[in-house]
Amino acid sequence: MDKAWIAAACPQPSEQHRLAAAARQDALTKPPGSLGILESLAIRLAALQQRALPGASTVPIVLFAGDHGITAQGVSAYPSAVTVEMLRNFARGGAAIAVLARELGVQLHVVDAGTLAEEPVEGVVVDKPRRGTRDFSLEQAMGNDELHFAFAAGRRAVERITAGGADVLILGEMGIGNTTSAAAIAAALLGARAEDVVGAGTGMTSDGISHKARVIEAALSRHRLDGDTVAALDVLANVGGLEIAALVGAMIAAAQARVPVLVDGFIVTVAALAAVRINESCAPWLIYSHRSMERGHRLVLDALGADPILDLKLRLGEGSGAATALPILRLACALHAGMATFEEAQISGPDL
Amino acid sequence: MDKAWIAAACPQPSEQHRLAAAARQDALTKPPGSLGILESLAIRLAALQQRALPGASTVPIVLFAGDHGITAQGVSAYPSAVTVEMLRNFARGGAAIAVLARELGVQLHVVDAGTLAEEPVEGVVVDKPRRGTRDFSLEQAMGNDELHFAFAAGRRAVERITAGGADVLILGEMGIGNTTSAAAIAAALLGARAEDVVGAGTGMTSDGISHKARVIEAALSRHRLDGDTVAALDVLANVGGLEIAALVGAMIAAAQARVPVLVDGFIVTVAALAAVRINESCAPWLIYSHRSMERGHRLVLDALGADPILDLKLRLGEGSGAATALPILRLACALHAGMATFEEAQISGPDL
Repeated sequence: MDKAWIAAACPQPSEQHRLAAAARQDALTKPPGSLGILESLAIRLAALQQRALPGASTVPIVLFAGDHGITAQGVSAYPSAVTVEMLRNFARGGAAIAVLARELGVQLHVVDAGTLAEEPVEGVVVDKPRRGTRDFSLEQAMGNDELHFAFAAGRRAVERITAGGADVLILGEMGIGNTTSAAAIAAALLGARAEDVVGAGTGMTSDGISHKARVIEAALSRHRLDGDTVAALDVLANVGGLEIAALVGAMIAAAQARVPVLVDGFIVTVAALAAVRINESCAPWLIYSHRSMERGHRLVLDALGADPILDLKLRLGEGSGAATALPILRLACALHAGMATFEEAQISGPDL
Repeated sequence: MDKAWIAAACPQPSEQHRLAAAARQDALTKPPGSLGILESLAIRLAALQQRALPGASTVPIVLFAGDHGITAQGVSAYPSAVTVEMLRNFARGGAAIAVLARELGVQLHVVDAGTLAEEPVEGVVVDKPRRGTRDFSLEQAMGNDELHFAFAAGRRAVERITAGGADVLILGEMGIGNTTSAAAIAAALLGARAEDVVGAGTGMTSDGISHKARVIEAALSRHRLDGDTVAALDVLANVGGLEIAALVGAMIAAAQARVPVLVDGFIVTVAALAAVRINESCAPWLIYSHRSMERGHRLVLDALGADPILDLKLRLGEGSGAATALPILRLACALHAGMATFEEAQISGPDL
């Protein structure tokens, strides 16, 4: 198995296209800077896509699903069975992300990267090294080969889905128990206390949240991930999730292929943190879509220096926050391409 | 002239539809509340529109333009000529709001509610009591009949534009000098110091901003609007703008006709504050779209108890922030209507 690709350098954004886009923004009929983040998004996309006029028309969504052995410790409000039940709901179009994909006119691709499903679900690609992770309170969540299989599953999905071209890629996730795994990864990578990154997930009470934090603290100690320096690969193998590892692989593969990624909420942002720790050159390709209500998200975003586009008090996952931010990207591109310049419109400049 | 309509009571949202929409949200396949503001927007729209499934398809934009005598005092970075130049840019499709309207598939209606234009601009409805306001540092910005003419111009626009039905109405504005008028209105209505509500407008330097604040303080003192209790009608006549008065009239008329209004940035929010002071029953119909970079916006939003949808560092006006928030409303409506319930999707509920 080729394991070296995950660390191979990603290309960097085009400074030339960034400067040209910034100059165009300053010539458009508005006070310079007055479109705020709509300007900076257009400029950033121009640099990433290496185009004078960036676009966000073709934006496939890839959702990776996985199950988590840690649910045996009572860390989630919902049973693991819901993960596979939701796979059917994604495929049949009843889940939030499926509705958003329809409304936005984009394709939703669902990958079973490690659920407990024994049989394939119609409309879902199966690409998993095992059914669910092991209970990380007792043993490693996955072996090293399983981790690299999941990375490669992420890459395979990106290659398959962006083969026909993609302006931007949206990544989402589903997996009962995965806020516990994500919080454990975040605590280990940030050197933070579990209680500072643990949130309600799908809806735990405050007692449940305290229990979840204790389970994570004990696991980080057992796996010796509570020191000052930990390796991201060790963290993922010990307390990660298969869908989270697939997200990491997908992000790095997208960046290597020059496809900007619109990052969703807590889980996907934790995957982004791991991706950046493993391969720092992918960082410029990650656009943060929203600040979620999940407690640890803020800490992880701060560590990444991220200032997300939206803050809509979401905490669903599935890629729903990233999908909700897509129209903002589209409007930013439309303004960049469609507005008249002061010269074209023959409008007076500032009084000097 | 009928002047009493402005105070006539607006109907109130339907509690029955609000409760039904909230119950539907809790039955959809997601943890309750996990779609945050996307849930609360759908519920609120259902109550306003009195529908089980609210919508935001037909959403005309009305932009009122006006000029301001106060520009003689050097309070804007751009000359007054830009207001009329921009009217042409709106009509020809080169301005930000025109691009947004096209991209969103909604109609843009531009009303000259009081610009200096001597001749009609093609594609712009002229409905003004005078060309520009008087310089409010020296005299009343407008007379009482002119104020009520501008209110009625707002109402006429709403009647004309929503005649064929409108799910929501977007209100925008354009007028060189209108952040000065809006800041004066806000300071008077909130009993705030001018320096706390004055911002850069189209791009003043810090010296320019200080000058603008001094001009406003002096004017409020001259018109005796610096006391504890001031009447909103007096404030608008003394230091208001014709497009701002038209916005006030349009908001109240829309609320009276059961049409929810998506409120734009600083200027439109100040008009909302005046509208609520004049006719408190319009308040439930006003949905705040975004928090702008203009300094006083936060104070005015706080006074209205508003928590806007977006915070994109915009400071353009024209209705651009409200238009940018429209896709969020549309996605909220699509999720409300299109998601499966737990029962329909046969998905397990929480572990109890």
